[in-house]
Amino acid sequence: MVPLIEYEEASPEVRSVYDDIRATRNTPFINNFWKALANDPPTLRRTWESLKAVMAPGALDPLTKELLYVAVSATNGCGYCIASHAAAAKAKGMTQAMFGELMAVVGMANETNSLANGYRVPIDEKFETLF
Amino acid sequence: MVPLIEYEEASPEVRSVYDDIRATRNTPFINNFWKALANDPPTLRRTWESLKAVMAPGALDPLTKELLYVAVSATNGCGYCIASHAAAAKAKGMTQAMFGELMAVVGMANETNSLANGYRVPIDEKFETLF
Amino acid sequence: MVPLIEYEEASPEVRSVYDDIRATRNTPFINNFWKALANDPPTLRRTWESLKAVMAPGALDPLTKELLYVAVSATNGCGYCIASHAAAAKAKGMTQAMFGELMAVVGMANETNSLANGYRVPIDEKFETLF
Amino acid sequence: MVPLIEYEEASPEVRSVYDDIRATRNTPFINNFWKALANDPPTLRRTWESLKAVMAPGALDPLTKELLYVAVSATNGCGYCIASHAAAAKAKGMTQAMFGELMAVVGMANETNSLANGYRVPIDEKFETLF
Amino acid sequence: MVPLIEYEEASPEVRSVYDDIRATRNTPFINNFWKALANDPPTLRRTWESLKAVMAPGALDPLTKELLYVAVSATNGCGYCIASHAAAAKAKGMTQAMFGELMAVVGMANETNSLANGYRVPIDEKFETLF
Amino acid sequence: MVPLIEYEEASPEVRSVYDDIRATRNTPFINNFWKALANDPPTLRRTWESLKAVMAPGALDPLTKELLYVAVSATNGCGYCIASHAAAAKAKGMTQAMFGELMAVVGMANETNSLANGYRVPIDEKFETLF
Repeated sequence: MVPLIEYEEASPEVRSVYDDIRATRNTPFINNFWKALANDPPTLRRTWESLKAVMAPGALDPLTKELLYVAVSATNGCGYCIASHAAAAKAKGMTQAMFGELMAVVGMANETNSLANGYRVPIDEKFETLF
Repeated sequence: MVPLIEYEEASPEVRSVYDDIRATRNTPFINNFWKALANDPPTLRRTWESLKAVMAPGALDPLTKELLYVAVSATNGCGYCIASHAAAAKAKGMTQAMFGELMAVVGMANETNSLANGYRVPIDEKFETLF
Repeated sequence: MVPLIEYEEASPEVRSVYDDIRATRNTPFINNFWKALANDPPTLRRTWESLKAVMAPGALDPLTKELLYVAVSATNGCGYCIASHAAAAKAKGMTQAMFGELMAVVGMANETNSLANGYRVPIDEKFETLF
Repeated sequence: MVPLIEYEEASPEVRSVYDDIRATRNTPFINNFWKALANDPPTLRRTWESLKAVMAPGALDPLTKELLYVAVSATNGCGYCIASHAAAAKAKGMTQAMFGELMAVVGMANETNSLANGYRVPIDEKFETLF
Repeated sequence: MVPLIEYEEASPEVRSVYDDIRATRNTPFINNFWKALANDPPTLRRTWESLKAVMAPGALDPLTKELLYVAVSATNGCGYCIASHAAAAKAKGMTQAMFGELMAVVGMANETNSLANGYRVPIDEKFETLF
Repeated sequence: MVPLIEYEEASPEVRSVYDDIRATRNTPFINNFWKALANDPPTLRRTWESLKAVMAPGALDPLTKELLYVAVSATNGCGYCIASHAAAAKAKGMTQAMFGELMAVVGMANETNSLANGYRVPIDEKFETLF
């Protein structure tokens, strides 16, 4: 593990990112992920800027985006990511029933992914072109 | 690869699953995944019954569920699953802009998952309890 | 892709590995995996020696070992590995019914793995010590 | 994490699944995985029914199925799944020597999976058709 | 699959990214990855800007960074990524001997990763703190 | 978890491997990975012999090889492997700046891997042949 950089000990470069996280999320709380990335300020800034842009409302709403984030994290088995993004999803409106269905879909998708791989199923002609 | 079982050559047990797939989806089309699973009828039936239950509308709508399915499949790199579920998502209303944002979130989640793992970030106390 | 090294063009070092593969497996056939690794003779030799030792009969029989190999390969989505080890398993006695059950277990395990991760289930005290 | 639902506080729907787990396994012990899934009763029931069907003796014996489960879980790095299914395998007869060989095969398979991917080895013609 | 957007049919926004790719890499060639991302211009621009920053020389040289990219891609089994980044690594000086050793390390790491997971090895006290 | 075998209680076969680890690394320290593998002496010996050969200087230097090892381990989310190989990389000269860039590349690679998979990007003709 690397040290977690608190605001008080952070460089001005890191503080400006922390300030933007706090302003964007409207909370003084900075979670450990950012305190770890702060050991490498360019990655901290780039990752935060990307995350802010990607998770903003657009063609998909912010809650749907958090659900997608949890789905990827559960598939990868990333404990930190599951915990932090499930909390974020809950803060944006995810109910316990929604979490239950989300996990059911994720479990099902991981099951059929390995079945499709194991049976080496050829892609149907009609699925070749998406848009 | 295993043989793909067509309706005409299928056993009554397999045909009854195919019939239900057609009725549920309101289309005569059976995609290759089911034709491959038909080599093992109990897995064909169990998988279809589970999928039908899991993907039905509930606390999450069917389109959101398909987006989650694509997210898992892209993370696992399952070509068949990406192709078939992206097509299903499109049929349920996914626009090209939504697909673009979906992929952006998936990419971002995979990036930060590996960062959280690599930095071995400890879970924040406030994320420990979800519900 | 790298060139596939055929026996006729191979160095004596590579030929001696090919000869041992043929003798051990009692067939003149050398599959593409070894022809690709032959581009790096130390990896070819080390990998073959390890594989031969690991897959030999011991506390587990060779067929069980091939089934395990297919399970890992389907989970990883490695197309080459699934195809070659499913063929090897069949040559050692895997029937179509056994393949069907193997895939059902693999699918189920991938499903419950993502559920256990997503729910962040704590390990039961009694599972902490294995031997 | 979600609350772990104990039998005493469980709904009748959840209790009936717990009762079946206890009867099928001939033990009063309910492991944490089911207590977590009990937060979403339909997933609890569906997952248990599937697991019971898939892990029952058939063309493969129950011990072989548990070994396969451990192989998938070690590949995915799912700590809970490794711990619980290794314990289940031991209860069904897995010796320490068998566990050692199982892990050796799993390690080897993960090594050669990444080599086959990295060298982008083309599938041999004779491996194309399995059954 | 989505359409691959060629320069001639691209919007000015996409063209400006393509122009920068060509100028940065000093070649008129635009590989398919960018032509696919061009279907979602914000992701195209953000991904290219990030990649350009991350892969620039710094504490690590560009060749080492490409080797790392190939290592991740082989581990994930991403065929496109292996092919394109192995080509990029070769263009930056990777010899066949270096590729052989790279793959040997990647294979070994995937093997011992699954062994460490399967044996559930506890982290040594002295490894807890990195910097 | 399995017992960790200390030198004092180890068999002569295990001791000889421990002795070689100590001599090769010029330290009395044996990390937990080997103490766990010592439960299966053939895997202990084979894994150590392979690791020693693969990580020795060659076309790639030992530090680059450790960086590759960390990249694979972060991608797989193997906590033990990340911790132990990041420590090894540091002992061989990895600075904090190098670790930061390493993680940035790993994160980026995992992001674009999932994008390439999700968009199902076809491999460019010029990337088909590597050497």
